[in-house]
Amino acid sequence: MIEPVQEHLSEDELEALEGPSEKLTNSVRDLIDAVIRTETDVDVLDEARRQIESVTGRLREKELPGSFGVRFGFPGKLRAWGNTVVGLRNAIAPPLDIVWNDDGSVVGHATLGAAYEGPAGYMHGGVTALLLDQALGEAAHAAGRPGMTATLNLTYRRPAKLGPVRVEAAAVPGEGHKTIVRGRLITLTDGEEVCVEAEGLFILPRAVREKAEEMNLETPHR
Amino acid sequence: MIEPVQEHLSEDELEALEGPSEKLTNSVRDLIDAVIRTETDVDVLDEARRQIESVTGRLREKELPGSFGVRFGFPGKLRAWGNTVVGLRNAIAPPLDIVWNDDGSVVGHATLGAAYEGPAGYMHGGVTALLLDQALGEAAHAAGRPGMTATLNLTYRRPAKLGPVRVEAAAVPGEGHKTIVRGRLITLTDGEEVCVEAEGLFILPRAVREKAEEMNLETPHR
Repeated sequence: MIEPVQEHLSEDELEALEGPSEKLTNSVRDLIDAVIRTETDVDVLDEARRQIESVTGRLREKELPGSFGVRFGFPGKLRAWGNTVVGLRNAIAPPLDIVWNDDGSVVGHATLGAAYEGPAGYMHGGVTALLLDQALGEAAHAAGRPGMTATLNLTYRRPAKLGPVRVEAAAVPGEGHKTIVRGRLITLTDGEEVCVEAEGLFILPRAVREKAEEMNLETPHR
Repeated sequence: MIEPVQEHLSEDELEALEGPSEKLTNSVRDLIDAVIRTETDVDVLDEARRQIESVTGRLREKELPGSFGVRFGFPGKLRAWGNTVVGLRNAIAPPLDIVWNDDGSVVGHATLGAAYEGPAGYMHGGVTALLLDQALGEAAHAAGRPGMTATLNLTYRRPAKLGPVRVEAAAVPGEGHKTIVRGRLITLTDGEEVCVEAEGLFILPRAVREKAEEMNLETPHR
């Protein structure tokens, strides 16, 4: 495992960075959608590409040598801005906005547009797996038993229409470093439709277990 | 189910559109990575956002009313440029470059960078599920028995390092509209490491089955 990275920003610096980061990421999400759906001419596509390359060059003038990783700093907080499902800086993330309930369950909301399509008009089956894996993982964490995915079993009840979606997950009561979590994905476009059910087993590797205890991790900070 | 859309471009028009589309999508992939990894100042982030919004506005001057869908046209070909895993116009797609082998199995390659991170330095467990779902689905199709995901069972053998990856899948021999497919995801960073194994059941809904026969679908065209 890669060592967790110690946060290098103060709480004030981090707060000043959050808003502009979120707005920038949202603009890229919108761009991803536009690139899929545009019917403009080839010369407009070429001009768009040149402008995007210029922006990317500017952003890369000062950058991390690798991926964002997961950063630990302020007591009980964790920052995973690069995460594919919930990362504040990751335009691939819908993002899934997950809330941890007091009873240890979690509920997440997102709206999935053209970029998450598999069959025409429907979410890619793997995208629903992606959202559920994150939600189930967070539910294990919310229950005080965080871990990495060991198994994930998905049952697809019906195709999931693109649009607003809710994901729910909760750990099965138990103890130890192996946690069973169940969840489901519900589309909200035409009333509530349960589209996918999931059951996962999450296991915390010993090395991470010891590190997490040492750092007194409790809640995530994205 | 949404009806398949009849292709409206000629083969020449489509060919002229492919190169610029692929380059534009690649530029957005690079931008997604840069947004995650940039350490530039807030004013650079703001300026980048304004430029991106301008590009998006231009692309949206002429666009599809909804998602891209799946288009049928030239005999035996299918175009899914919006697909989350393989779509030519979808910057979320790594893309996974899948080849159909003569024996009905498929093999896909991709390189996953910072945008596909879950645990620090590793692929998000849900991302590996996303790639496997697509590969297994294509293997069902390659075996002549296409379908939608009914169940997908994933076993995570070890964390998958970010970097180059291979995905393999093949249908279990059989007949009818229910197809079992097995596959695995192998990272290539430090030699070959089998990280995730998958088994899926794919079922073709009757309506799609009839439509596909009518259209004589054989191979996909992205």
